[in-house]
Amino acid sequence: MKKTTILLLAMASTLATADEGMWQPHQLPSIATELTQAGLKLNPNDLTDLTGFPMGAIVSLGGCTASFVSDKGLVASNHHCVYGSVQYNSTAENNLLANGFLAKTFDEELPATPGSRIYVTEEINDVTTLIKASITENMSGSERYKTIDKNSKTLVAECESDDKYRCSVVNFHGGLEYYLFKQLTIRDVRLVHAPASSVGKYGGDVDNWMWPRHTGDYGFYRAYVGKDGQPADFSKDNVPYEPKHHLKVNKSSVDEGDYIMVLGYPGRTNRYRTALEVENQFTWTYPNAKNYREELIDLIHNESAPESEARIKYESTLAGLANYAKNYGSMIKSYNKGTTLARKQQLEQDLSAWINADKMRKAKYGNALTGLNKLLKQDQKTQARDLILGYMAYNKMLSTAYRLHRLAVEKNKPNVARESGYQERDLARFEQSMKTFNRRYDANIDQKILFAMLTHYVELPKSARILAIDEFFELEKGLNKKALSAKLEKMYQTSTIADQETRLAWMNKSVADFEKSADPFIQLAVKTFSVRKALEEKDEELSGNIQAYRPKYMEALIAYFNDKKLPVYADANSTLRITYGNVKGYSPRDGLTATPYTTLEGIVEKDTGVKPFNASKKQLDLIKSKTYGEYAKKELGSVPVNYLGTLDITGGNSGSPTLNDKAEFVGLVFDGVYESIIGDWDYDTQLNRSIHVDIKYMLWVMEHVDGATNLIEEMDIVE
Amino acid sequence: MKKTTILLLAMASTLATADEGMWQPHQLPSIATELTQAGLKLNPNDLTDLTGFPMGAIVSLGGCTASFVSDKGLVASNHHCVYGSVQYNSTAENNLLANGFLAKTFDEELPATPGSRIYVTEEINDVTTLIKASITENMSGSERYKTIDKNSKTLVAECESDDKYRCSVVNFHGGLEYYLFKQLTIRDVRLVHAPASSVGKYGGDVDNWMWPRHTGDYGFYRAYVGKDGQPADFSKDNVPYEPKHHLKVNKSSVDEGDYIMVLGYPGRTNRYRTALEVENQFTWTYPNAKNYREELIDLIHNESAPESEARIKYESTLAGLANYAKNYGSMIKSYNKGTTLARKQQLEQDLSAWINADKMRKAKYGNALTGLNKLLKQDQKTQARDLILGYMAYNKMLSTAYRLHRLAVEKNKPNVARESGYQERDLARFEQSMKTFNRRYDANIDQKILFAMLTHYVELPKSARILAIDEFFELEKGLNKKALSAKLEKMYQTSTIADQETRLAWMNKSVADFEKSADPFIQLAVKTFSVRKALEEKDEELSGNIQAYRPKYMEALIAYFNDKKLPVYADANSTLRITYGNVKGYSPRDGLTATPYTTLEGIVEKDTGVKPFNASKKQLDLIKSKTYGEYAKKELGSVPVNYLGTLDITGGNSGSPTLNDKAEFVGLVFDGVYESIIGDWDYDTQLNRSIHVDIKYMLWVMEHVDGATNLIEEMDIVE
Repeated sequence: MKKTTILLLAMASTLATADEGMWQPHQLPSIATELTQAGLKLNPNDLTDLTGFPMGAIVSLGGCTASFVSDKGLVASNHHCVYGSVQYNSTAENNLLANGFLAKTFDEELPATPGSRIYVTEEINDVTTLIKASITENMSGSERYKTIDKNSKTLVAECESDDKYRCSVVNFHGGLEYYLFKQLTIRDVRLVHAPASSVGKYGGDVDNWMWPRHTGDYGFYRAYVGKDGQPADFSKDNVPYEPKHHLKVNKSSVDEGDYIMVLGYPGRTNRYRTALEVENQFTWTYPNAKNYREELIDLIHNESAPESEARIKYESTLAGLANYAKNYGSMIKSYNKGTTLARKQQLEQDLSAWINADKMRKAKYGNALTGLNKLLKQDQKTQARDLILGYMAYNKMLSTAYRLHRLAVEKNKPNVARESGYQERDLARFEQSMKTFNRRYDANIDQKILFAMLTHYVELPKSARILAIDEFFELEKGLNKKALSAKLEKMYQTSTIADQETRLAWMNKSVADFEKSADPFIQLAVKTFSVRKALEEKDEELSGNIQAYRPKYMEALIAYFNDKKLPVYADANSTLRITYGNVKGYSPRDGLTATPYTTLEGIVEKDTGVKPFNASKKQLDLIKSKTYGEYAKKELGSVPVNYLGTLDITGGNSGSPTLNDKAEFVGLVFDGVYESIIGDWDYDTQLNRSIHVDIKYMLWVMEHVDGATNLIEEMDIVE
Repeated sequence: MKKTTILLLAMASTLATADEGMWQPHQLPSIATELTQAGLKLNPNDLTDLTGFPMGAIVSLGGCTASFVSDKGLVASNHHCVYGSVQYNSTAENNLLANGFLAKTFDEELPATPGSRIYVTEEINDVTTLIKASITENMSGSERYKTIDKNSKTLVAECESDDKYRCSVVNFHGGLEYYLFKQLTIRDVRLVHAPASSVGKYGGDVDNWMWPRHTGDYGFYRAYVGKDGQPADFSKDNVPYEPKHHLKVNKSSVDEGDYIMVLGYPGRTNRYRTALEVENQFTWTYPNAKNYREELIDLIHNESAPESEARIKYESTLAGLANYAKNYGSMIKSYNKGTTLARKQQLEQDLSAWINADKMRKAKYGNALTGLNKLLKQDQKTQARDLILGYMAYNKMLSTAYRLHRLAVEKNKPNVARESGYQERDLARFEQSMKTFNRRYDANIDQKILFAMLTHYVELPKSARILAIDEFFELEKGLNKKALSAKLEKMYQTSTIADQETRLAWMNKSVADFEKSADPFIQLAVKTFSVRKALEEKDEELSGNIQAYRPKYMEALIAYFNDKKLPVYADANSTLRITYGNVKGYSPRDGLTATPYTTLEGIVEKDTGVKPFNASKKQLDLIKSKTYGEYAKKELGSVPVNYLGTLDITGGNSGSPTLNDKAEFVGLVFDGVYESIIGDWDYDTQLNRSIHVDIKYMLWVMEHVDGATNLIEEMDIVE
């Protein structure tokens, strides 16, 4: 499924309107007028300076965003972004998840979960010319793919020669442009404060993507460096990092209609896909993927009693499955109700008309869309099998065996030539994932998952199936449930890779060792490798061919928009972006309005005493006695908890600070509303709303519930 | 359970605030200032004249309200109030429920379902003195009960000597006052128009009690009388009734904040119960009743496949069970979240303090509340058994046998001395219900219901059980499921009362015939009669005693409120009332606002193509093409469908016209929102909202979807 995540970026369905757009810092001068009109009080040009204010205060946690909020390296992010570290430090006797955690002094701070990093983006450089230098028109897809891959890896390796940095080459506009990102990597990260889950995860999965919302989704890390001020591994002697810039915290928060902006690292959007891709995604991929997810959820539920050890091991898997089943469900619903496809088709018609109206344009872009679509159709031919194989990876034994064997294969190559994920820079994380295996594995459930996905696999037409897999599982003559069951039973009885020591030992074995092994899952990996490799190469060939067309299509699209005097932003790709808009409610349904703020009283209203609606007695009593301290908002007559904004965000923006017109911290963005989930494909000004924790609620809980006065004092609080 | 429905009226928990209150016509002069301030343009005194405008245009359908909207006897009410007549005229070939019905000429009008009546209230007289004349302080409870009962029946019989009238004596304030109602009874009622259920019942049970709402809950009858202008049985020669007054229809409808009022026949509220009653009702009665309802729903679902003949027969039973299970659920929720009980207790404390502050008051009212509560506690002692016996009546064989036998018993008495429901005036309806038996009966389900309720019955302590029932079902030694099953099986095989002819024949047999019968259900009725009669008499004794205390308590409460210069309205009791307020939204939850209007677009939004969200293609196309005709509301940019009001309504108000400040027809009230269900006990200004069909939507559907231009022309439409 690599191709879908790495290569299929791009294609414009909507024009950038107010609120829509995830802008690269260097683009801001081009939208300076809009920013100032919207209410920004800073000079837009100042936002382009990565090491200046406020950009220098924004950091990445890898998957989440965060920001410096004191001159001693205090970092604010979402509760769900520091959750792993809270969980890691929890014990049966001291359940930090349930009770929350507060270090009253630096000494009491706890190490974050192993592998935690804080990334500070220091440089962004356009490397398009370097990446494309050796590409020629006549290259095969595979050659093109490998050339880009090799050029990227070379640049990354050079950049990372100083081990303080982690670097990456990221493509924009589907490969039209490439940028090299250089990030200072802080390796000593400590947990400072997290409220109880009954605050930080209030509403849990039930309220996930929902409004009205009452979640105190915040937590604090601190960045530590060596005494020399440079990144260092954890050490008692390390000192708090002193960032050049940190955000002031404005406890007045923001009012309805006020300008707000979010600086962060949004993960992935698909605003520029072609109509063909959109239709396929919403009418084939999402419905089928949703079904597989729901099947796996049912399976895990059926095979494990609530609260059983097995169920606990799969809680996080279940949460992930359910999260995206709900996500896909929302998108399918929005798509079926809306006009996404029709507008996309209209855009393509308009674009074609514009291209055909000019000879030069016709010559240059005439075949871009048709050429691209032809390749995409080719890709769709194998999607039924690819999706099944993708979900088969929920089987941990199979995917672990595949990865271990692949590591042995890759280790035979020079580091820079290895597949991503198997380079020296990846090995610590690889080992970490091999170590967490048993915490998320139950043999019976794992076996049932494999059985279920093989049952789907065998329903594929013969031509789509993989002979080596058919042979291994004896599926050549179709499905014999009893036989397959017995076969799997025996594999699970025989294999020893579920044993941690054995598994870790495989990380250092040779391909020959694998080939000699009698372990059935290792055998499966070995026997199916060559055919899987061949399929991967076919994918690379296709991807390389797409890389010849998609940039051309995007170039046409951008030229078309520019001709209409419209700036174009690139799809999200986990790089630093700015989105701006206003605090604003919306109408989720005819006859209902979501007001822009929720209040403390809504917590009492929702509370059942049962997770995830189990606020502490202390908190409920404070609310009932209207102990608002200095945090009430006049117009509401209470303390605001969460608010709605029109910002254009997606996963990865989690933990981003919400800033006011002077770039002061006024909250944290942590979610979007249900109706905005389709926003990853199609931003709708009427329905797209971001959800933010109000700084007033953060401070109210910190002061009145958790007594985190030390942190309140550490931050620069203004009004 | 008679006592709970007839006698336990009354006890104030809240003072009448703006919007709260169901006022008797004669009270209006006392709230004239409030009415005028609220925006009424008419002289409040004019509303007291029952035969003047607008009161003369308001009629009862018995259970629903309606109004004359033309000088030719055209009557507007809710779709769900004329539903039975639409169903009655539906055939497999011509499904009027699905397709709707429109008579383009008088000739095409269809007879309403048999027994349909239109009641025009012509006189309301205070008969308190007459009813209480022969009551003395020293009477036993039973004597008091029988005296009131006899005096009432005598007055009714006198009043009904002219067979054009139906009369009733109704108590107010728990028996503090009695009024005699005299209603002209129109017997020839015809169905004129009902939209398709996909309009009139749009949203069905899913949307029942819910907002946002998009239901076109309207339909039309016409009243016919003999050529002499007097009520007559159906005849081709009858002519449309010409009412003295009818309502003008204002197609401008009303705006947010506008004055609106509803004139109608609200069924029953319990605003003046004691804290003891309230607590028992919400912590015992509703939770238990909800459980029995849900058990019966599950049972019927398990015993009948969807769409099976058995299921179809029980659809209406299921709807009723589910309707009140949801209703009780909402009330339990509201009660647990709210302060109903605490405020009730506070009121009783304040009242006691006020009584005790004055010697005279203390002498007069000092023992009212304690005396009443003592009796209520006595009543609660048998409530577990009474509730089970109540739900056992869902068994049709048992309840039918009981009623047939009782009829034979009552027929031995002079008409006026008979129990209500068994007098000559009741016999047509009695026979009608015996005839519909088979349309709602399945032997297997009926048997399973009896088994289920007997299973609960046998769990009661011996002291609460009824020996005759224990003996009949051989339950003296506890439950033997197999034996009971076999016993019931045999009863159902042997009994013949499920046969219509046999059953109707029993209506004319003597008590001796019943006693001789070998039919097991007839035997059950005969053998348990004396003990059931004894329990009934005990109930009457208790009711009579309560009748000595509750009026005294209400008198104290009214004196207390009057002392505070507050007018007091009586609990609803199916008599003519006025409630007024404004068009206004509300906040169902923190972070959400229900806007006061829904629009046509909301129908498209909700539509799934599947019942109950299956608007016709014609309607959907009209909406999509924005064919609003002259019915769009500027501020909405569309046609309003339903709107919210602050009116204080309850069941029985269904079909009431919603009137503007000049008493012009601007819609129909048809429901309340979920949060207002507890309003029957405790009106909350913040959450209590009535739901109305907007006249603009009615006219839009009539003109553009159904082509009911003949009716639009017949009505007096103004702007």
